Amino acid sequence: MTQQDIKYSFGLWTTGWQGRDQFGDATRAFRSPADDVRKLAELGAWGFTFHDDDVVPFGSDDATRAKLLGEVKDAAQETGLTIEMVTTNLFSHPVFKDGGVTSNDRSVRRFALRKVLRNVDLTAELGAKTFVMWGGREGSEYDGAKDLHAALERYKEGVDLIAGYIKEKGYDIKIALEPKPNEPRGDIFLPTVGHALGFIAELEHGDIVGLNPETGHEQMAGLNYTHGLAQALWADKLFHIDLNGQRSIKFDQDLVFGHGDLLSAFFTVDLVENGFPASPDAPRYTGPRHFDYKPSRTEAVEGVWDSAKANMETYNLLAAKAKAYREDPEVKAAMEQAGLFELATPTLAAGESVADLLADTSAFEDFDADAAAERSFGFVRLNQLAIKHLIG
Amino acid sequence: MTQQDIKYSFGLWTTGWQGRDQFGDATRAFRSPADDVRKLAELGAWGFTFHDDDVVPFGSDDATRAKLLGEVKDAAQETGLTIEMVTTNLFSHPVFKDGGVTSNDRSVRRFALRKVLRNVDLTAELGAKTFVMWGGREGSEYDGAKDLHAALERYKEGVDLIAGYIKEKGYDIKIALEPKPNEPRGDIFLPTVGHALGFIAELEHGDIVGLNPETGHEQMAGLNYTHGLAQALWADKLFHIDLNGQRSIKFDQDLVFGHGDLLSAFFTVDLVENGFPASPDAPRYTGPRHFDYKPSRTEAVEGVWDSAKANMETYNLLAAKAKAYREDPEVKAAMEQAGLFELATPTLAAGESVADLLADTSAFEDFDADAAAERSFGFVRLNQLAIKHLIG
Amino acid sequence: MTQQDIKYSFGLWTTGWQGRDQFGDATRAFRSPADDVRKLAELGAWGFTFHDDDVVPFGSDDATRAKLLGEVKDAAQETGLTIEMVTTNLFSHPVFKDGGVTSNDRSVRRFALRKVLRNVDLTAELGAKTFVMWGGREGSEYDGAKDLHAALERYKEGVDLIAGYIKEKGYDIKIALEPKPNEPRGDIFLPTVGHALGFIAELEHGDIVGLNPETGHEQMAGLNYTHGLAQALWADKLFHIDLNGQRSIKFDQDLVFGHGDLLSAFFTVDLVENGFPASPDAPRYTGPRHFDYKPSRTEAVEGVWDSAKANMETYNLLAAKAKAYREDPEVKAAMEQAGLFELATPTLAAGESVADLLADTSAFEDFDADAAAERSFGFVRLNQLAIKHLIG
Amino acid sequence: MTQQDIKYSFGLWTTGWQGRDQFGDATRAFRSPADDVRKLAELGAWGFTFHDDDVVPFGSDDATRAKLLGEVKDAAQETGLTIEMVTTNLFSHPVFKDGGVTSNDRSVRRFALRKVLRNVDLTAELGAKTFVMWGGREGSEYDGAKDLHAALERYKEGVDLIAGYIKEKGYDIKIALEPKPNEPRGDIFLPTVGHALGFIAELEHGDIVGLNPETGHEQMAGLNYTHGLAQALWADKLFHIDLNGQRSIKFDQDLVFGHGDLLSAFFTVDLVENGFPASPDAPRYTGPRHFDYKPSRTEAVEGVWDSAKANMETYNLLAAKAKAYREDPEVKAAMEQAGLFELATPTLAAGESVADLLADTSAFEDFDADAAAERSFGFVRLNQLAIKHLIG
Repeated sequence: MTQQDIKYSFGLWTTGWQGRDQFGDATRAFRSPADDVRKLAELGAWGFTFHDDDVVPFGSDDATRAKLLGEVKDAAQETGLTIEMVTTNLFSHPVFKDGGVTSNDRSVRRFALRKVLRNVDLTAELGAKTFVMWGGREGSEYDGAKDLHAALERYKEGVDLIAGYIKEKGYDIKIALEPKPNEPRGDIFLPTVGHALGFIAELEHGDIVGLNPETGHEQMAGLNYTHGLAQALWADKLFHIDLNGQRSIKFDQDLVFGHGDLLSAFFTVDLVENGFPASPDAPRYTGPRHFDYKPSRTEAVEGVWDSAKANMETYNLLAAKAKAYREDPEVKAAMEQAGLFELATPTLAAGESVADLLADTSAFEDFDADAAAERSFGFVRLNQLAIKHLIG
Repeated sequence: MTQQDIKYSFGLWTTGWQGRDQFGDATRAFRSPADDVRKLAELGAWGFTFHDDDVVPFGSDDATRAKLLGEVKDAAQETGLTIEMVTTNLFSHPVFKDGGVTSNDRSVRRFALRKVLRNVDLTAELGAKTFVMWGGREGSEYDGAKDLHAALERYKEGVDLIAGYIKEKGYDIKIALEPKPNEPRGDIFLPTVGHALGFIAELEHGDIVGLNPETGHEQMAGLNYTHGLAQALWADKLFHIDLNGQRSIKFDQDLVFGHGDLLSAFFTVDLVENGFPASPDAPRYTGPRHFDYKPSRTEAVEGVWDSAKANMETYNLLAAKAKAYREDPEVKAAMEQAGLFELATPTLAAGESVADLLADTSAFEDFDADAAAERSFGFVRLNQLAIKHLIG
Repeated sequence: MTQQDIKYSFGLWTTGWQGRDQFGDATRAFRSPADDVRKLAELGAWGFTFHDDDVVPFGSDDATRAKLLGEVKDAAQETGLTIEMVTTNLFSHPVFKDGGVTSNDRSVRRFALRKVLRNVDLTAELGAKTFVMWGGREGSEYDGAKDLHAALERYKEGVDLIAGYIKEKGYDIKIALEPKPNEPRGDIFLPTVGHALGFIAELEHGDIVGLNPETGHEQMAGLNYTHGLAQALWADKLFHIDLNGQRSIKFDQDLVFGHGDLLSAFFTVDLVENGFPASPDAPRYTGPRHFDYKPSRTEAVEGVWDSAKANMETYNLLAAKAKAYREDPEVKAAMEQAGLFELATPTLAAGESVADLLADTSAFEDFDADAAAERSFGFVRLNQLAIKHLIG
Repeated sequence: MTQQDIKYSFGLWTTGWQGRDQFGDATRAFRSPADDVRKLAELGAWGFTFHDDDVVPFGSDDATRAKLLGEVKDAAQETGLTIEMVTTNLFSHPVFKDGGVTSNDRSVRRFALRKVLRNVDLTAELGAKTFVMWGGREGSEYDGAKDLHAALERYKEGVDLIAGYIKEKGYDIKIALEPKPNEPRGDIFLPTVGHALGFIAELEHGDIVGLNPETGHEQMAGLNYTHGLAQALWADKLFHIDLNGQRSIKFDQDLVFGHGDLLSAFFTVDLVENGFPASPDAPRYTGPRHFDYKPSRTEAVEGVWDSAKANMETYNLLAAKAKAYREDPEVKAAMEQAGLFELATPTLAAGESVADLLADTSAFEDFDADAAAERSFGFVRLNQLAIKHLIG
């Protein structure tokens, strides 16, 4: 398996991050987004993505906007890279300090929707198929600062309006919501994959709205990223992914993929590349392998590219390991013992009714719970086989 | 406001907890559940709840079961306490070591469903309206130990089977799922309010399935409990609540309500008692104020009752404070400045279309973002008003 | 008790924070530090503190430095406010991207020491008695990026050099180290109060080096701030405090004091104001009540001052509550039952030797552990008394 | 490198854990400790350790004690396994519900000290050189429940008494304190490596008191375990280690070593096996590689042994990888670029005084901070080299 086989994509805000953080100034000079596109192509990427403001500074006039977008489009054309996703910056300008589509200020909400709609048109124009919405400023620090019901109503109004517009225009675009538990807000609305799935279920146009889960964002809530991907896939809502690295529950680190929880990264890649082991007909993720990370600010520009390469290289290594893991007969036998395939068998037999279950004395009256409790699932051994494939 | 006005309810496993924990033996002797019911009545509780195994030890024969349940029913009758909810223990017996409805072992899943169905009948017989399902053992320690798609399929199969049975029997019962991120499993399925909402949306019988969020469980993932309640209410799925206390992200502490994050508890009570401040027509929580806590194992039986009282007393105090907070004209003015009511106003005007929004130059072309960014929301002042009501 | 009785102090970087965060631009305009000093005086503060770069932009020439420092000194003079602490910014300029005194780059370490020494002279000149060192950039993201032994050696070399210089010059200044677990670095050296105490024990000039623990920093590691203060006091090393608010384990929130964990804040104030309940001869904290918080970026300048006031107001309220709590006979009786005073009694009797203990059969051979285990400590009741004092 | 070269040791409470947890009953039958010793020998372990109560149930009479200890000693003799450490259970019996040496109940403290002293004698008799003290119950749930100063005084009194006794008896034993942040108590005293180091510095007999840091315990506070080991080594206090696995901040998981944060485990092994890369003269860890983990309760006895083997196997693999990493010239060059060796060079030149530093204009007046800030440390590339050694 080589990079040519896997569609790697990068946000332009990743390699373009200048290293300005909460406590310090930029450590790297600005580079032209178009130049970064060329460099990413050289390194073997397949596509790229961006926020409007990554390419066109907030408040630019139309001519500047056209010129700057043109440069990026030209670079895409020239390199053959795909612009696969576009997203809107509703968090950097101070006007969004209380959010975009859920700001308590209605004029801000209207402005935010217009900024988004303009980007939807751009997405269509560029031929990107995914439109990500990360509501990083949609939230609060203080429980009294929001009418929480109204906030969710406005969030719904906003997303439905945008989805409705996409349908109305006949665009071939899907919306992917990106959850995050906190930072920059104290509590962000739609904090996890689950909350976003629950939200989408209430939408009018939820059919074209799904998820863009980010590794570190789920891990910031101590949640299992692969479990999150699985539930999104189960609901047929895994539209896009943001891969990166995070070390435990703390501020959003945006490390290189695999530089956080490496064992978890292995199982993420295993799911993305190989699907569920016992559910061959389950939905599969088919989108790009998209990295949303930040090159550490200790690095100069050479470190930016080292880090971009490291994402792809680590993913490649993990993909090869995961393939071997799945093909190993010892692993298959251990999965069998662990009951993975048994879990894919419905609990009720084909055609069995509740009445039938209630009538089955072997299921309850004659069931020997103590004996059944003796079963050794061998989960540790199975996990150790993964470890051996990973580092053996 | 007095305890008589608020319907307080306790799990019998709370006051009945003998103090056996991961690292130590029981510090309190067993007491009869019926006696605890009488004592709870004396303290001013309105109702109680239990797991099957709280009252009837696992594996008891039918006669023992009838006798023990009879004692509890008699105590309820005698004291006038309401049995408002029943739940099933699918976690203590070793047979459930890999879960109940999602165990990799199909025979365990069938046994688990039978155990649940028996309890559903009991719930109906006792007249309880809520049937809680906490899947504490549904999960994994190792990402490879489960086919995650199959696990969600089995979870769905199980909950739908139970909900279907309730409908078939015509029982007036609703199911409330209780999320928890981890402990006792490394990662539990349906880890948060959000994941459970997303899960319910995929059910066949999701109409009678909702949520039983627990304070500490959401806080163990660093999430805002009141935000979780709000999203459950917004989806009209807040069927029951488990109130307790937790101090930061760590093991499940099950402290007395208010003995964890007190300021958060204030806003929880404010939402439960007073609803959303700017959304009078939004769904309200109407169920009992149910405590799911553990009296610290440093306490002998007198401390058990001190702690039971402390839950109600703290809730009462917070309810009174929340009422005064809502009625304070200064608070109302601060809410106005903060834009709480403005958030309840749809972003689009009545009848306004996307085309209209796009045509409104005041929303974008002529919008002065820098000027709008100057707005002072006064969130800190509003929060300080809450602090003053709370401790002033 | 009024503000006049309690010495409140603010960092100029707190009210002066313009709201630029990891994901967004400044929401407030720059204000002159001297003006903020005047405003703080008006609000009732007793003193203030600053980093060199808060007042004098990095790289300013000597004349500018003199002028800007002069403005602040004049404002202090004019208002009577005390400049009680000075600290050095070794984190904002990109040169410190890998740390100051532990940067892998020796030339940076030398520059950092010079920057600190210059500030030590300034501290002496201004008559401040405390010199804080927060090593926010001393750390790493990657375990291989540092020789960890060398890093601690360099940290020691740096702190000892500065402390030695203070002694050599005869300055009446003490150094206070400020621990933090992470952010902006993935892992910061001296992550907690404990690590700093352990570090100080290895210093040559540790006698004038102590601690400046910050509420939120300890809570970011899930640790109990009041416990941290207690251990620092026990080691006679609590030289300064940074009070603020944090909600659970997440990014550094720097909320107003009391706007985080309110119950914990109560016990912090109780310890600071009233000392240990059963150890009257234990060391007491005698320094200023110093706030290190950030006015939320949703607030314009009026919110800055609302938040500054809120810190003092909440502290005042908590101090009054803590006083009443300590004076309440019911609390004293509960403390007695809980064994607080008993804990202050040495385990061995006066003059008792190990041999005596070994000879005391009542301590072991005849000790009835089961009977002793029955004791009810009444901790929940005591905590509920605190709750009632707080919100009753 | 083979298991024969590395001294692996296991706590008898690890393989002997029957799977009883906070929410469920034992899933495995009791096995004789002596049998487990034999099995560990067969698997290639070098030594073992135990708590008194692991071998001799609490409250056993002297004859039973002698018999049970005799069985374990015989098994050690027979297999050649070394009893390298002994520790005391001050947490399981209800009498310790408020702690052992810091219980508010003085009679409990006296009993606890006697239980410990008896074990010290046993340790000497068995020839073990390390005596571990994990104060799992030394702590509180409520900030008001303890006089925190008195608690630390009692802790000191207890440890000094034990250390004094060791000296008095001339035993060749060192005490190793094991920190933990919480669980089973809400907050445990000496929550981290740092707090224990700070505590030891205040002891009278601190010279024979050091640390036994556990992987998961530090990670439960979000701290970097390898950093903790490094600070303990720097203070020459790393007397023993407890290796296991933990996934993020949550309850104490006690997974197999490497089944938690694998990348962190790599750097832990690298430090333990290879020392600090640029500090050849720094203290090294020379004790056994001791595992303190729990075989998952989903496993029957075969899984217990699978998991015991997995610890050693993973350590072996990591040790081999770490050796190759250190020997790789590309890694050495990257370390050079990163400045690892430069950090081992003192910041001041040999014989340089503060006055000399102040006179060196190249260090400050003529230092070009902007130019120095351009340095690319290449930390990401160095970390990626570690990843490639690990999974390449």
